[in-house]
Amino acid sequence: MAIMRMGYAHVRVTDMAEARQHYTQTLGLNEVAAVDNKVYFRGWDEWDHHSVVLEEGGVGVVKYGWKAQYAEDLAEIENNAQKFGASTERFSKGDNLEVGDGVRIFTPSGHVFEVYHDITSGQVDVGNVNPEAFPRDLRGIGAPALDHSLITTPDVALMEKFMKDVFGFWTAEQVATSLDDDAHKIGCWMTGSNQIHQLAFIEGPEAKLHHFAFRLEEGWEVNRAADLMSMDDVPIDVGPTRHGITRGKTVYFFDPAGNRNEVFAGGYLSFADRPTVTWTVDQLGKGIFYHARELNERFTTVLT
Amino acid sequence: MAIMRMGYAHVRVTDMAEARQHYTQTLGLNEVAAVDNKVYFRGWDEWDHHSVVLEEGGVGVVKYGWKAQYAEDLAEIENNAQKFGASTERFSKGDNLEVGDGVRIFTPSGHVFEVYHDITSGQVDVGNVNPEAFPRDLRGIGAPALDHSLITTPDVALMEKFMKDVFGFWTAEQVATSLDDDAHKIGCWMTGSNQIHQLAFIEGPEAKLHHFAFRLEEGWEVNRAADLMSMDDVPIDVGPTRHGITRGKTVYFFDPAGNRNEVFAGGYLSFADRPTVTWTVDQLGKGIFYHARELNERFTTVLT
Amino acid sequence: MAIMRMGYAHVRVTDMAEARQHYTQTLGLNEVAAVDNKVYFRGWDEWDHHSVVLEEGGVGVVKYGWKAQYAEDLAEIENNAQKFGASTERFSKGDNLEVGDGVRIFTPSGHVFEVYHDITSGQVDVGNVNPEAFPRDLRGIGAPALDHSLITTPDVALMEKFMKDVFGFWTAEQVATSLDDDAHKIGCWMTGSNQIHQLAFIEGPEAKLHHFAFRLEEGWEVNRAADLMSMDDVPIDVGPTRHGITRGKTVYFFDPAGNRNEVFAGGYLSFADRPTVTWTVDQLGKGIFYHARELNERFTTVLT
Amino acid sequence: MAIMRMGYAHVRVTDMAEARQHYTQTLGLNEVAAVDNKVYFRGWDEWDHHSVVLEEGGVGVVKYGWKAQYAEDLAEIENNAQKFGASTERFSKGDNLEVGDGVRIFTPSGHVFEVYHDITSGQVDVGNVNPEAFPRDLRGIGAPALDHSLITTPDVALMEKFMKDVFGFWTAEQVATSLDDDAHKIGCWMTGSNQIHQLAFIEGPEAKLHHFAFRLEEGWEVNRAADLMSMDDVPIDVGPTRHGITRGKTVYFFDPAGNRNEVFAGGYLSFADRPTVTWTVDQLGKGIFYHARELNERFTTVLT
Repeated sequence: MAIMRMGYAHVRVTDMAEARQHYTQTLGLNEVAAVDNKVYFRGWDEWDHHSVVLEEGGVGVVKYGWKAQYAEDLAEIENNAQKFGASTERFSKGDNLEVGDGVRIFTPSGHVFEVYHDITSGQVDVGNVNPEAFPRDLRGIGAPALDHSLITTPDVALMEKFMKDVFGFWTAEQVATSLDDDAHKIGCWMTGSNQIHQLAFIEGPEAKLHHFAFRLEEGWEVNRAADLMSMDDVPIDVGPTRHGITRGKTVYFFDPAGNRNEVFAGGYLSFADRPTVTWTVDQLGKGIFYHARELNERFTTVLT
Repeated sequence: MAIMRMGYAHVRVTDMAEARQHYTQTLGLNEVAAVDNKVYFRGWDEWDHHSVVLEEGGVGVVKYGWKAQYAEDLAEIENNAQKFGASTERFSKGDNLEVGDGVRIFTPSGHVFEVYHDITSGQVDVGNVNPEAFPRDLRGIGAPALDHSLITTPDVALMEKFMKDVFGFWTAEQVATSLDDDAHKIGCWMTGSNQIHQLAFIEGPEAKLHHFAFRLEEGWEVNRAADLMSMDDVPIDVGPTRHGITRGKTVYFFDPAGNRNEVFAGGYLSFADRPTVTWTVDQLGKGIFYHARELNERFTTVLT
Repeated sequence: MAIMRMGYAHVRVTDMAEARQHYTQTLGLNEVAAVDNKVYFRGWDEWDHHSVVLEEGGVGVVKYGWKAQYAEDLAEIENNAQKFGASTERFSKGDNLEVGDGVRIFTPSGHVFEVYHDITSGQVDVGNVNPEAFPRDLRGIGAPALDHSLITTPDVALMEKFMKDVFGFWTAEQVATSLDDDAHKIGCWMTGSNQIHQLAFIEGPEAKLHHFAFRLEEGWEVNRAADLMSMDDVPIDVGPTRHGITRGKTVYFFDPAGNRNEVFAGGYLSFADRPTVTWTVDQLGKGIFYHARELNERFTTVLT
Repeated sequence: MAIMRMGYAHVRVTDMAEARQHYTQTLGLNEVAAVDNKVYFRGWDEWDHHSVVLEEGGVGVVKYGWKAQYAEDLAEIENNAQKFGASTERFSKGDNLEVGDGVRIFTPSGHVFEVYHDITSGQVDVGNVNPEAFPRDLRGIGAPALDHSLITTPDVALMEKFMKDVFGFWTAEQVATSLDDDAHKIGCWMTGSNQIHQLAFIEGPEAKLHHFAFRLEEGWEVNRAADLMSMDDVPIDVGPTRHGITRGKTVYFFDPAGNRNEVFAGGYLSFADRPTVTWTVDQLGKGIFYHARELNERFTTVLT
């Protein structure tokens, strides 16, 4: 059983015209479909039909898709979820555009996870035969792919148990009130692959989105992304800077609806046997923003 | 069942004093043990006891270690190997310094693979509690970790089948005489994780080493590594440049014994469902050296 | 007549032991002399005896040295200053350690400028014969050289006239209340060479220091400098980020005495005939911090 | 008297359609005029009318323009040239498109230098009021400006004397057969500003072009330029690599006519009082190509 990656983030936006401009012209995603009040996007280095779904009306996250490696993973994950005590339901091919049958799970954090194995799939923009290293003419930031998301949950330890039991993820990094065994957990950065985090969550309200992130390769691309945001009047929350947690280079910024995005590069490779890194809450500022070494108020209060 | 990574490369060197200087002062590895005619090294971002073993006397690769995620993987991989028709033997805790019981497999390429689950393990140089982003004072290139190796094999297609059947790896990229189904395969870049390659092989003699590689994070580190090699009189084979295959940034260079090393950064993330990239042999030059677009003679002839 | 560069910044620090640690271990300067209550430093890529003088007792700038290309420049600059109406006095070889005769000028901004042609001079750390690209083992940030300073002045337009009339500098960039001819000038970035600024000043009190800056070559070095500051507990004011004005990449930070330092990379080349860039005061935030697009309160209030 | 910079390189190309494609789409220059058999180009960060003139028919350099800071510099430079023994002639406004009156000098190297003060001038692509850090949508490599050229000359020492006597340039770096006073000079890298070289020359035939270079800001831009050259089938001569001489990062490549171009970033700042760096001929390989540490045959034989 293996969850390969966060396959899609389905998010609400208040104004689709503004959102389209932001996600295609500034972030540089490809628009691949528009049906009813939803628009679908894919990064240039993704081969599945889409990785971002925007739905007009409101803000915040509707649900996340998670792509499983094997068809039989669906039943196993469903079983895991039910054993854990989470509600689940089946969904059918076509309920999500170009996505096959799957299992919908209602997480302890109040979010909706859809696990699927089948999705219409093609090839990345540079193709599969003698490909160039990247597309000759990228738009804007030219984000290649969706990377991860950070959400809030009222009970961090419970959500961590859910991700371990149901998805088989492990905790790459965590924040706790102390190093004691009975310390209270404030946040977890979890993964089931070399990606340093596929899902992170911090203590906070149910069903909320902190940010969803796009992967870049190097630090200069993160800095250049910030330059382009200034040119395009995109509000930057923080950055460019480095996270202590994950070591990644980052810019946090807001889409026109007020959902927080991130461009993220670097960080180290996670492995199942790598010791978990623990940050104590007194060092949380440095853990989140390695250079400023303090949180801004927005970090914990602006959620969608 | 999961092979997590290439755990160690065990390689022969002609002169240990020179090798020590190269691997600790230029590459920046930590020397962790010296027993008999072997010296053991670990990168600053590795937590297992060692990732490189140098043995005095000759050149070339003695064997590779592969770390399995679960203890029960050993029996499954042993079974896979035997079904494939490869010779195997068990080895015991202590046969390899600080390494537990394991299975030794003799590959169709003429190499020795040791699969193990247990190895003395500690923590990376920055520790596990409120860690800095990297050690304050790195030596030389400061390579954080072993990454992958490229070997030669008389029968590329057979070796590819071996890695699929025994390790569950998939082919991220390949070189073939054409795009036809019956094309002859010249090389395969294989992985079982997001690492774009964990083992690659190209057509050539049995039991030979093309290079083993250390991971760096960004392109500037690859360029700086080349600067340091010039300062330290390390012979550079090729680079800094980019590979077309894997998109990675690279310098090929030689250790004092003549074994080819690489520093490698970037490349994209592999996933089990990502379409395999195929390079046709007429574009092999560009595939290997994306800028020069031609192989130098050394690439195919200098092996150890 | 030509002022080649800001030759030295002579600055007060409250605690010399802490300052030494900061300037040699974090910034990576070489300590070259210590006499009485003054310590002298030089970057690895500087050939004159020193570029930074620290004097124990207080904070803020004591004076700046400016190196003239020709011996006869001293008389011409003295004459220029007197015509402008500035007070001047001669100083003698030995009044400043290793510095020859010169002219001291009291600027309209309340600062002391010392113009000299002779200073004990040697070679940069990599030498003049078949040099390496940089020293093999840099300490900390490894700043190669002093670059420029930003000061405050009650009358920006008057100080601009002084720098034009006395030093022959031109205004690379400026901030004004509007684009009208009679707009009030808020700040000037001036130079007499390809360096995008050799001296900048903004409206503020007399005789104050905003920051003095060290040159780095590339953006990644600026980001790495910020990493090292976090490791060394150096308070970062702002950054890493980019300036709109000069386009340079920057980190502002504080020495242990509270004097603001900067590491600065990039920016474009200035030329005498390049049109002056004007920023209107409503865009000052973006001009100073291109990504955040707003000033923090410290920028205008923390001076030494 | 001050020559500010190489103002234009006027070069022959065999096929203007191919050349236009190369200089505008790969290098990213702006085409600003086309008159008769000449096409004029300007980089996005240049304010004078043009910096490159291409003339259809043949290969190699027709002449170089040098922009003087003051109108009265023309007479002084003319006088310098005549004292040196070089032939000169006056040219008139309009003889060169958009260029004013000037002095044409025939150099000991067999090249034609045109010194002028007036040229139609505008502003850079980002403008002069609240400018962005760079144009939002650059084409291809997006080279901001012409930087320098390397030519050949039968008598290096004589050409060096010419550049000193006529232009007031100094030698930033040089290659000589030894460190002895009577050593034979093989090459000189000269400048009259902080640019580490404005003109370089090596021993070789008269009137020939080795390369002319465009400035980039950082190493990643040089590497990205090489990527784009591979995508656009531009033949790369050498690189990306670093020069020992000047420390600059570089790619040498060829335009469709076979003239060698360079993209160049970094290097250090030159100053009139900075000690000259000398490379001995046995280290010439490392001086030119810091990583490979040997010249390829093309370096000395392919000239246009």
